[in-house]
Amino acid sequence: MKVSKFGGTSVASASQIKKVAAIVQEDPSRKIVVVSAPGKRFSDDIKVTDLLISLADAALSGNGAEKELQAVVDRYASIAEELGLGDDIIHVIEEDLRGRVAHDKENRDLFVDQMKASGEDNNAKLIAAYFSSIGLEAEYVNPKDAGLVVSDEPGRARALPEAYENLKSLRDRQGIVVFPGFFGFTQEGVMMTFARGGSDITGSILAAATKAELYENFTDVDSVFAANPNVVDSPVEIKRMTYREMRELSYAGFSVLHDEALMPAFRHSVPVCIKNTNNPSAEGTMIVAEREYSKSPVIGIATDGGFSTIYVSKYLMNREIGFGRRLLQILEDEGISYEHTPSGIDDLSIIVRSHQLTPEKEERIMDRCRKELEVDDVHIEHDFAMVVLVGEGMNNTKGLTARATAAITRADANIEMINQGSSEVSLVFGIQNSDTDKVLKELYQEFFSTAAVLGV
Amino acid sequence: MKVSKFGGTSVASASQIKKVAAIVQEDPSRKIVVVSAPGKRFSDDIKVTDLLISLADAALSGNGAEKELQAVVDRYASIAEELGLGDDIIHVIEEDLRGRVAHDKENRDLFVDQMKASGEDNNAKLIAAYFSSIGLEAEYVNPKDAGLVVSDEPGRARALPEAYENLKSLRDRQGIVVFPGFFGFTQEGVMMTFARGGSDITGSILAAATKAELYENFTDVDSVFAANPNVVDSPVEIKRMTYREMRELSYAGFSVLHDEALMPAFRHSVPVCIKNTNNPSAEGTMIVAEREYSKSPVIGIATDGGFSTIYVSKYLMNREIGFGRRLLQILEDEGISYEHTPSGIDDLSIIVRSHQLTPEKEERIMDRCRKELEVDDVHIEHDFAMVVLVGEGMNNTKGLTARATAAITRADANIEMINQGSSEVSLVFGIQNSDTDKVLKELYQEFFSTAAVLGV
Repeated sequence: MKVSKFGGTSVASASQIKKVAAIVQEDPSRKIVVVSAPGKRFSDDIKVTDLLISLADAALSGNGAEKELQAVVDRYASIAEELGLGDDIIHVIEEDLRGRVAHDKENRDLFVDQMKASGEDNNAKLIAAYFSSIGLEAEYVNPKDAGLVVSDEPGRARALPEAYENLKSLRDRQGIVVFPGFFGFTQEGVMMTFARGGSDITGSILAAATKAELYENFTDVDSVFAANPNVVDSPVEIKRMTYREMRELSYAGFSVLHDEALMPAFRHSVPVCIKNTNNPSAEGTMIVAEREYSKSPVIGIATDGGFSTIYVSKYLMNREIGFGRRLLQILEDEGISYEHTPSGIDDLSIIVRSHQLTPEKEERIMDRCRKELEVDDVHIEHDFAMVVLVGEGMNNTKGLTARATAAITRADANIEMINQGSSEVSLVFGIQNSDTDKVLKELYQEFFSTAAVLGV
Repeated sequence: MKVSKFGGTSVASASQIKKVAAIVQEDPSRKIVVVSAPGKRFSDDIKVTDLLISLADAALSGNGAEKELQAVVDRYASIAEELGLGDDIIHVIEEDLRGRVAHDKENRDLFVDQMKASGEDNNAKLIAAYFSSIGLEAEYVNPKDAGLVVSDEPGRARALPEAYENLKSLRDRQGIVVFPGFFGFTQEGVMMTFARGGSDITGSILAAATKAELYENFTDVDSVFAANPNVVDSPVEIKRMTYREMRELSYAGFSVLHDEALMPAFRHSVPVCIKNTNNPSAEGTMIVAEREYSKSPVIGIATDGGFSTIYVSKYLMNREIGFGRRLLQILEDEGISYEHTPSGIDDLSIIVRSHQLTPEKEERIMDRCRKELEVDDVHIEHDFAMVVLVGEGMNNTKGLTARATAAITRADANIEMINQGSSEVSLVFGIQNSDTDKVLKELYQEFFSTAAVLGV
């Protein structure tokens, strides 16, 4: 059996939900369907999740939220009407929303979270009703009833080991299970949401728990591309890649599948397929444990901006046992995670995502470096981007770094950082943000032009 | 005034000491002379320091040490005789050695250290006597009397701030000061030796304290070469380099001047000159705070073997705040300092000097990584070498990395690690130990062939 997850644009409207139904009908092994909240129908549209955030804010303000509640109900109502469903399902949804608005507001974050999660939850109910209306045997299953037990970490919950035990039996249900993405419940029954990409995570957990033969992730692209199609003209499609490759690509800007979502599938060896709801006959991109290397060692090139560098130097630094550890402790005290730590002999840089920094944090960090570590110099620079070459075939491919650095030089960009030496699957370059597009184009040309793929 | 330090081979024999005297006589600004213990006169010779270690061992064994003591006295006696000195100085030295043999042996390490330090100390007395005998106004100055106060760290003492205050007045002494290298005394009067290259450190401290115009470091080569002359045929001589360049080169195998020795001179902006006792008219290599860049961005290429890599991987590692810090803590608990920490997305390597590892330490480290950090994989690999390109002109030289990686590829070597991104003065490559020589030759060809220097 397969677990099929449909993202926000795949369930944004009646016509999209009809495509979903057709996809599910077409293959009887599609037994578990995980759905997101209705996404945007057109580029200026408002996602249901955003309508729900407005509703939560209005409810918290104490000045009445009837208008905002009605906006959400109306959205579902228009979908239901177009799907030919009666009023019953809309009453269920409206009832549910009114119950949520009346929810305990002491913890404002949890209040907002339970309101947001209604987007997936009510959409699952609606879609289950639609499936039934067209003669598909289907039922909405609530994560609480199904036993999706998660850790008590609001906004970043993780499934507990017993969740996998509990969810296993979904496999044996009669008919199609329609399951809302994005949330679970603690042992104490408190609703908790997952991190960004939460519905992908739910699908991955269900696929792992039920030992599905395949986890299908339906979205709005035919496949994962080897490079950002907004920068590179018609980049090649990736037909088959490993978990590690997907993980490394999604780290640096490939947003097709949220990286954390891969973990349950990866740990339980369930292959993943990225497919297009709007073009289901397209083969999609398979994500598997192992693959044959193609002739090109590189499978994809990702880029991501928004990095900063904390630079420290101190004469004879590398003689001082504990220096690096104490520096990382300072960052940890500020709650900052770091990406890379390139080092010279007497200097060390720490590369972090810039959004974690504030002028006050930067001041405190620099101050502690001067006072506690007695550094000779410390300063922070912004506006760096990372370019990541990814491919299982890269390990031990002699000359690959030479080709990559030559391409970056042809792009007339300076290499601010290279991190090679740990991962066997990726090679990370730090460049100036403003050089990103020209570097990506030149690297794509180097590794994916016909000559490079067929020749060499 | 200048501080001139003469290394072991420069003071190994009467004929060498005569060269030293001629050098000192030639330039009246050479007011402070720092001397090592007599080194080897020919390749199979035994250094006085090694004779002294044998003496110390014999004394500690309790079975009498007369033979070993006589070997040391004889060596000085043969020098004294050839220099035409009377017996007085040899009586002084023998008396001194007998006093040291009778020294408290409770702390065996300190006993050995004070015995070793006699090599420099007695040679300074002998050389001062010789200078006087040929009509130079000169006096032996003892580090204790001069106030060279150091930290209580046996074998790796550091000069305390008051040492610089105390030593300042050496500048105003009449005549030439002959000062033994390698040791100082704690506040409590206990003798402590410096780290490896200790006489260089003494010279550097004296130059800094007396605000010398120049610290001359006399050795047995005309200059520092751009690459190891045992591997590259007639490498170019470096005429002028910065402290940072020298520091980075000496980190990775350039043994002309011990890196720690540069610190006092560096901190007090005293330029350093490496010169040849056997060819004093050669210009030597100047080490200064700043220099003009020549046309070649690279000034030297150093290589050093004996590195190991501790590799760890864990899915979603970079989300875990504190992961790297906890890993470094494990190394710190084992007393291991590290050199570089290249990282991928889910993996991290720590590169350390192999001599710090033992099979037991490796087992403990891997065990703690598995248990405390719950890593997916941890393993340790050995036999890596570092190749370091050094040059102040490298910063922002576009295409330099491309040239270097292309050269390594031409050498048919695999790049195991690249560390670029912190130091502005160096670029570090990790390769297999066995590839070191061919990589060095190819890189030298790339950056120092006539075409590269004159053209580009």
